[in-house]
Amino acid sequence: MSIPAEQYAQIFKSNNAPIEYKKVPVPKPGPDEVLVNVKYTGVCHTDLHAWKGDWPLAIKPNLIGGHEGAGVVVAVGELVEDVKVGDHAGIKWLNGSCGHCEFCMASDEPLCEKALLSGYTVDGTFQQYAIGKAAHVARIPKGLPLDAVAPILCAGVTVYKALKESQAHAGQTVAIVGAGGGLGSLAVQYAKAMGFRVIAVDSGSEKQDMCLNTLGAEEFVDFAKDDVVAKVKSVTGGLGAHAVILLAVSEKPFQQAAEYCRSRGSVVCVGLPANARISAEVFSLVLRMVNIKGSYVGNRLDTQEAIDFFARGLIKAPFKVGKLSELTQVFKLMEENKIAGRYVLDTSK
Amino acid sequence: MSIPAEQYAQIFKSNNAPIEYKKVPVPKPGPDEVLVNVKYTGVCHTDLHAWKGDWPLAIKPNLIGGHEGAGVVVAVGELVEDVKVGDHAGIKWLNGSCGHCEFCMASDEPLCEKALLSGYTVDGTFQQYAIGKAAHVARIPKGLPLDAVAPILCAGVTVYKALKESQAHAGQTVAIVGAGGGLGSLAVQYAKAMGFRVIAVDSGSEKQDMCLNTLGAEEFVDFAKDDVVAKVKSVTGGLGAHAVILLAVSEKPFQQAAEYCRSRGSVVCVGLPANARISAEVFSLVLRMVNIKGSYVGNRLDTQEAIDFFARGLIKAPFKVGKLSELTQVFKLMEENKIAGRYVLDTSK
Amino acid sequence: MSIPAEQYAQIFKSNNAPIEYKKVPVPKPGPDEVLVNVKYTGVCHTDLHAWKGDWPLAIKPNLIGGHEGAGVVVAVGELVEDVKVGDHAGIKWLNGSCGHCEFCMASDEPLCEKALLSGYTVDGTFQQYAIGKAAHVARIPKGLPLDAVAPILCAGVTVYKALKESQAHAGQTVAIVGAGGGLGSLAVQYAKAMGFRVIAVDSGSEKQDMCLNTLGAEEFVDFAKDDVVAKVKSVTGGLGAHAVILLAVSEKPFQQAAEYCRSRGSVVCVGLPANARISAEVFSLVLRMVNIKGSYVGNRLDTQEAIDFFARGLIKAPFKVGKLSELTQVFKLMEENKIAGRYVLDTSK
Amino acid sequence: MSIPAEQYAQIFKSNNAPIEYKKVPVPKPGPDEVLVNVKYTGVCHTDLHAWKGDWPLAIKPNLIGGHEGAGVVVAVGELVEDVKVGDHAGIKWLNGSCGHCEFCMASDEPLCEKALLSGYTVDGTFQQYAIGKAAHVARIPKGLPLDAVAPILCAGVTVYKALKESQAHAGQTVAIVGAGGGLGSLAVQYAKAMGFRVIAVDSGSEKQDMCLNTLGAEEFVDFAKDDVVAKVKSVTGGLGAHAVILLAVSEKPFQQAAEYCRSRGSVVCVGLPANARISAEVFSLVLRMVNIKGSYVGNRLDTQEAIDFFARGLIKAPFKVGKLSELTQVFKLMEENKIAGRYVLDTSK
Repeated sequence: MSIPAEQYAQIFKSNNAPIEYKKVPVPKPGPDEVLVNVKYTGVCHTDLHAWKGDWPLAIKPNLIGGHEGAGVVVAVGELVEDVKVGDHAGIKWLNGSCGHCEFCMASDEPLCEKALLSGYTVDGTFQQYAIGKAAHVARIPKGLPLDAVAPILCAGVTVYKALKESQAHAGQTVAIVGAGGGLGSLAVQYAKAMGFRVIAVDSGSEKQDMCLNTLGAEEFVDFAKDDVVAKVKSVTGGLGAHAVILLAVSEKPFQQAAEYCRSRGSVVCVGLPANARISAEVFSLVLRMVNIKGSYVGNRLDTQEAIDFFARGLIKAPFKVGKLSELTQVFKLMEENKIAGRYVLDTSK
Repeated sequence: MSIPAEQYAQIFKSNNAPIEYKKVPVPKPGPDEVLVNVKYTGVCHTDLHAWKGDWPLAIKPNLIGGHEGAGVVVAVGELVEDVKVGDHAGIKWLNGSCGHCEFCMASDEPLCEKALLSGYTVDGTFQQYAIGKAAHVARIPKGLPLDAVAPILCAGVTVYKALKESQAHAGQTVAIVGAGGGLGSLAVQYAKAMGFRVIAVDSGSEKQDMCLNTLGAEEFVDFAKDDVVAKVKSVTGGLGAHAVILLAVSEKPFQQAAEYCRSRGSVVCVGLPANARISAEVFSLVLRMVNIKGSYVGNRLDTQEAIDFFARGLIKAPFKVGKLSELTQVFKLMEENKIAGRYVLDTSK
Repeated sequence: MSIPAEQYAQIFKSNNAPIEYKKVPVPKPGPDEVLVNVKYTGVCHTDLHAWKGDWPLAIKPNLIGGHEGAGVVVAVGELVEDVKVGDHAGIKWLNGSCGHCEFCMASDEPLCEKALLSGYTVDGTFQQYAIGKAAHVARIPKGLPLDAVAPILCAGVTVYKALKESQAHAGQTVAIVGAGGGLGSLAVQYAKAMGFRVIAVDSGSEKQDMCLNTLGAEEFVDFAKDDVVAKVKSVTGGLGAHAVILLAVSEKPFQQAAEYCRSRGSVVCVGLPANARISAEVFSLVLRMVNIKGSYVGNRLDTQEAIDFFARGLIKAPFKVGKLSELTQVFKLMEENKIAGRYVLDTSK
Repeated sequence: MSIPAEQYAQIFKSNNAPIEYKKVPVPKPGPDEVLVNVKYTGVCHTDLHAWKGDWPLAIKPNLIGGHEGAGVVVAVGELVEDVKVGDHAGIKWLNGSCGHCEFCMASDEPLCEKALLSGYTVDGTFQQYAIGKAAHVARIPKGLPLDAVAPILCAGVTVYKALKESQAHAGQTVAIVGAGGGLGSLAVQYAKAMGFRVIAVDSGSEKQDMCLNTLGAEEFVDFAKDDVVAKVKSVTGGLGAHAVILLAVSEKPFQQAAEYCRSRGSVVCVGLPANARISAEVFSLVLRMVNIKGSYVGNRLDTQEAIDFFARGLIKAPFKVGKLSELTQVFKLMEENKIAGRYVLDTSK
């Protein structure tokens, strides 16, 4: 496979600076790395945070953002045995990890203090050719559409992991806060595929319709109209949901979730509103033994499992295809909250 | 065994009203209940909260408080098969539960919405003869001193449960906040018996000496002098404690614990400062996958296990013996924070 | 509700003696018991074992067998608070348990050494009015058909529990051995509802068709024609099934299952062929960390959960309705292996 | 650090052929490997099996056996970042693994189908300079004696893992079969450190004395004199041990263990008698929900934890120091069952 010397990329020179779309050299993989010709890359809220710099974690200077890239392997380092040129692979948020700290040894590599983060601390997928550590690139079975699978690599894995972390079991009820958004619509589908019953929490009749009639939620709670605590309790026999998955991007739901979570249940935080705190009354937390936990991205195995659900046709992530050259416009739509589902960019355009 | 018609009891007519020490009738057990001649009863902060009424849960009018009573069974209801007159038994916080709700069916009877709470919603152990549901009275092996075992029935069970809920495993490090107090000194000992390594967090050289030299903690962090977050991290290789057990009675430690809890670790809330909230930064909670949970009292099996550790000589709860007639004075000492260890009252005096 | 003095019942005077269908007195519930007017009772292989006496556990003399009875509560003992006359309830295998042994305290009441077994150590549901301990009768929501729900009370709960015990998670593959039988057809459906992928192991084109086209299995392995070990491995990428559920009534599958169970997977034994042993090569068991475990009936909560799946319409248990008076003929069909699905008897006939 | 061109090694040309002690070249580490100057190497039964070839797994031709080597890192490959020349490190049974199969991704790298096994499929520690994959060499804190820590690298890790796999919790009782042997004496100590109560099963008054008075077991059952099933039950209140750890090297205990394992308990197989099968009555396995499982070696994290217990002074493995040149004689003693504790060889002699 011939690899060009140059390629197009979107560069974040620094936080909030205009994003430059220009030609840059194609990088070369190190001995334990692979080079992926990214065909499609998803655009995630995290990419916007990276550009804006409103998270307490600094980005690499002259960053090429993006961390949901699906494409074809075009080169592999000399130590790489299990990834071959021609394989389909995904570059995901976790680009690499040290491999030997106590978190890596426990399969919790997202917690590795030396983790490399695609499109944040190392260059990501807003380019045509991206580097990933061979140990970390997602294996994508041939036959899967590379545009549709791209959002699974981050959004899909993240919500799937959160559902696993909830420790709810099949037949139990999960409230998904932000069910109608990009993460949420995936979460409702993964939840169904895992045997959970879903209460969708979001706002508006369009989202209500999608959640109930397309995605398969059993109940819809409209946070703009309903008393969320009262309604979740009322549709769960007064006891609350076995788990609450917080995908919201504002702080309020984080203050409230413990109240409609069932005793012994879990509130799983996923969304990352800037500067938000979660809080709960100690008295109730203790007497009802509620569990509030954070769930980050999945590990490598979670990633493969999330892809497997997708490959089985159980997950339909609504997405629109744009052009890599139009990233700035997509960010604008995102800031204006005008995107339903996920944007996926074709890197050849 | 002859049962008198009358006995002495301490009565809380209403919140904050003077406590009356007087003769009352000895109650009769129902068909599924037992009557215990309480020999010794512990005095717990909860009893003080019951009297003062500063928790969001109403007490029974004309309450006889107390829920750490150890004594001898003197009568059993006609359906009771496994408790015999003459057995030693304990009346604990959970006096009874419905037995068939989803929490009772899952051995989480402390979460039962119809639970009867000794010395709070039903009469407790500040009397010479107390009623307990047979299914719930603790079985105390003969040979155990009834004064020393009394605090195990609530304080011991509670900290043992919290340590189990922490999901730390043997060899891992647990920070115990409030390690030098009544609950704390038990917690350090249970933690050691469970194979944990203990960081004691408390204040003062007397507590430091007790924690390190008597109870077996490996490190002491003085919250009045040390930067708690920095020091816990520094003695754990920079990563923080695998679990934090919050026994504190003020709110501040609840705001801080997540910061020195290791990634993937658990902050277990046990103490119940009036009106306190726990809170944590969402960003860090998510990226480090920290777990904040409440732990209430143990279930019946936890109770028997906690007693078993005590029976094996692994737990030495420091206590002073007072007289039932002196309850008011003991409450006063408690409010003034002048009690080291636990007060146990002899009900015959 | 008027309760007659006499009723019809099927009596096992002793093992293998002719079964007598005759009038007997209607029993009266004790203080912690309820009397259920059984409308329909399932017939289970266990009932046949009870009559034949080929299990190493003696039956009550003059036994009234049966342990899958669904009906209406007609009387309750004076201590019973949560079951009311008129409620729909089920008498299941576990009629009662001591409530306070370490197994009962851990919600493992089926392991209670003093458990009362319906239709085995106490009279069961092959009669029109049967007694159950209030703590144990299944709560059946009104609106569910009492004939269809009867087999859920034992067969359904048993396979649901086995699937839970397998510790497989959603998206993983479960091989169900005996998938086309009475237990098996329920197991395939519960497995699907829990998010598992199912390999059905059984024999014959009729069962193949049912498993693949009606019940939703993804693969069918015919033990009479295929090399079971090789085929299960081949359809699972060479690694074997994440769990194997052994519902078989002959011994051979018990010797073989560990070989096609994935490393770290579980072989769950449920079926009870008389005098059978399970065995496995130690070398392979250790190096592959395979887990062989027994799963008995579910506890009370498992029962309610199994009913809940049924109530949601996810489980269709094929059954035929017969008459209580025809039990002997049904046993004959069962011995001749001529029953597809479950027989349910109308006790009014 | 100067590295010689040649070194002494013990070579197994083929199964059962005389072992050759001779000079061989010092190997060079690949980019992801390290070279360890082995100071001491333990001798394990596995080494004897490797030489004799009585396990169903072929060895590398011209094998250098051994897999418990402790020494000093003298060279590292160019990709190795976290191991430095001069570090103390251990070569253990698992020399390397693929790093990306589903088992590696789940921290179950011992189950990796491409795992490299030291002293079995790749050269091991019966030489002065041995190669290990950097990701897999054990990190040994400086200050630990390299002779004493060597047996921890395999024997210690193996029994520690088995105890973790037992899922017993602190305060519960574990029966250790073969408690007086090399693995067993370590197992008793790890069990104590983890808070378990230990029943030692072995034979002879010398082992009895060691188990009870040196290692800290609470009970001793002599399989040559006692009815093992009856005695274990009698010292556990009739219910059996919560877990059984089978370290035995003959088959009989594998047939019997399920009988004295408590309901819901685990029988953990570790020992690998040639050609042995484990078996159990299906009826009892199911009705008592007993779990029979294999436990292999620990993963990398288990290894570090096992070393950590040793570093804290909680584990004293009795061992004798011999010379590398005397391996054949040590094998002979091992075959004659004449070794108490572990033999550790000084590779400089």
